[in-house]
Amino acid sequence: MLQPRGDRKVLCAGLICLDILSVVDHYPVEDTDNRIERQIWQKGGNCANSAAVVAQLGEQTAYFGTLATGRAADMVLDEMREFGVDVDQVVMHDGYASPSSTIIINTSTGTRTIIHADNNLPELTLSDFHKLDLDQYKWIHFEGRNMTEVAKMVDAVQEYNRSRSMEDRVIISGECEKAKYHPEHFISTVDVMFVAKEYAQHHGFPTAQAAVEGFHRRVKKGATVVCAWGELGADAMGPDGVHHHADAFSPDQVVDTLGAGDTFNGAIIAAMCRSLPLEEVLKFGCKVAGRKCGQFGYRGLTIGE
Amino acid sequence: MLQPRGDRKVLCAGLICLDILSVVDHYPVEDTDNRIERQIWQKGGNCANSAAVVAQLGEQTAYFGTLATGRAADMVLDEMREFGVDVDQVVMHDGYASPSSTIIINTSTGTRTIIHADNNLPELTLSDFHKLDLDQYKWIHFEGRNMTEVAKMVDAVQEYNRSRSMEDRVIISGECEKAKYHPEHFISTVDVMFVAKEYAQHHGFPTAQAAVEGFHRRVKKGATVVCAWGELGADAMGPDGVHHHADAFSPDQVVDTLGAGDTFNGAIIAAMCRSLPLEEVLKFGCKVAGRKCGQFGYRGLTIGE
Repeated sequence: MLQPRGDRKVLCAGLICLDILSVVDHYPVEDTDNRIERQIWQKGGNCANSAAVVAQLGEQTAYFGTLATGRAADMVLDEMREFGVDVDQVVMHDGYASPSSTIIINTSTGTRTIIHADNNLPELTLSDFHKLDLDQYKWIHFEGRNMTEVAKMVDAVQEYNRSRSMEDRVIISGECEKAKYHPEHFISTVDVMFVAKEYAQHHGFPTAQAAVEGFHRRVKKGATVVCAWGELGADAMGPDGVHHHADAFSPDQVVDTLGAGDTFNGAIIAAMCRSLPLEEVLKFGCKVAGRKCGQFGYRGLTIGE
Repeated sequence: MLQPRGDRKVLCAGLICLDILSVVDHYPVEDTDNRIERQIWQKGGNCANSAAVVAQLGEQTAYFGTLATGRAADMVLDEMREFGVDVDQVVMHDGYASPSSTIIINTSTGTRTIIHADNNLPELTLSDFHKLDLDQYKWIHFEGRNMTEVAKMVDAVQEYNRSRSMEDRVIISGECEKAKYHPEHFISTVDVMFVAKEYAQHHGFPTAQAAVEGFHRRVKKGATVVCAWGELGADAMGPDGVHHHADAFSPDQVVDTLGAGDTFNGAIIAAMCRSLPLEEVLKFGCKVAGRKCGQFGYRGLTIGE
């Protein structure tokens, strides 16, 4: 079992953006004017979402990524601070616009349609990463994007770990979601590998169980594979090779599934930081993700185990 | 002919909001993830757009409307100031969100799909309007919305005008666009009535000429009716009852028609402030609106007459 060191921080490295949610009762027909009562502005980005969840669940958490100076960045940074996430290490770029997503949530069908603009903002580089003091962190979670640079960061953490005793090592997790970003470097390197349903299906796995079994054969010794599969719950396999499954906790009414996977990942990290047994970790992840689906946004996700 | 008094300001009263434009090459299919290079954030709202155009065309211009305190308001106010528009009279509300529109511009079809959220922000009231010093203005342009209150404001300007000599009166214009807002009060009261194609069609007029002729019979004596009809140009009829038409000035490539009508209205107001003959006014309006359609946004619209 993983033994994260003391009260050091969990660092989440990846995308942060501004999500602008339009909640509609029908998908807009092209070239029409549609009126809605309100839009929801919130921070988004897989990694930023996970960080906000980890922090809410009681871990000291820092977020690491890039933003463009300006009011959009100020908004999302304020929100991260409200969640209790340390954003001091965020790399700010002048002369760019921050990434933002327009998201249409159709309450009558439960779909979410995303238009994401990265605004050509530079992503994290190894040289940004070198500015971090790794002694501060017990866990670094990487989003599976920008992999050329992220792979080097993972290697840098491994290098750091090599000269540390077991209990002083930084746990590394990686999220494999979009196949187009080629997050394969995670398979052989991370301690905890998050396999998204999308990624599992891309690799031909029809179920979460098949995915965790399949990837568990390929990850490094001692690693854990976790895979959530929407309303079918989640599966995991730890160092002992025992397969675990937890059912989804479905809310009374599904309101907003946006970021449910990011929430699940954050909850898993938080539960693992408490060194819960993998079965409990999995159940906790499903519970927090289920709660998230019953509400808009990411606030108020603190629940008992 | 209208003789706007000296160097006083043009005031535009109506909506301002934040427009978030996503420029796509196909209309997003529901429940998909779409990536675009950039989003454009800009102030929107018919009246705010017109004000930015009037200011650019050399008139001292003020904007009057409501906003919610916060970063979205700061963004649009900054932009208005960049256009040279005085926003000192804007009524700020705490505890609300500013109106914003998500706009999907499909470059392959030229459509623009709008999802507008008013966020329940209170609109202008007569009591807000009473705080203005009408001596500051030579022209007040009203957007045809929030008509219960706007009708009272129009009446207040008329009351003000009654005790002034001809050359000291404030010229009133009103924009009739959305029939659902019932802007009919403008018909009998304003000096310049802008009839949008949408409004004309709602009233059964098949052409701009039919619309200006039809409405000219109903407006108050001495009033001018102006009606733009997209790529078919625009028509107008002044106090003398002579019908004028100007062809559209089509840009080499239509890039962004969002706010073309607002631009046209602003250009007409600016041209009338210079006391140009109505035919020239109309031609100028078409020229500026055409230029706007050939570019994104509202910058750089200054052109010779």
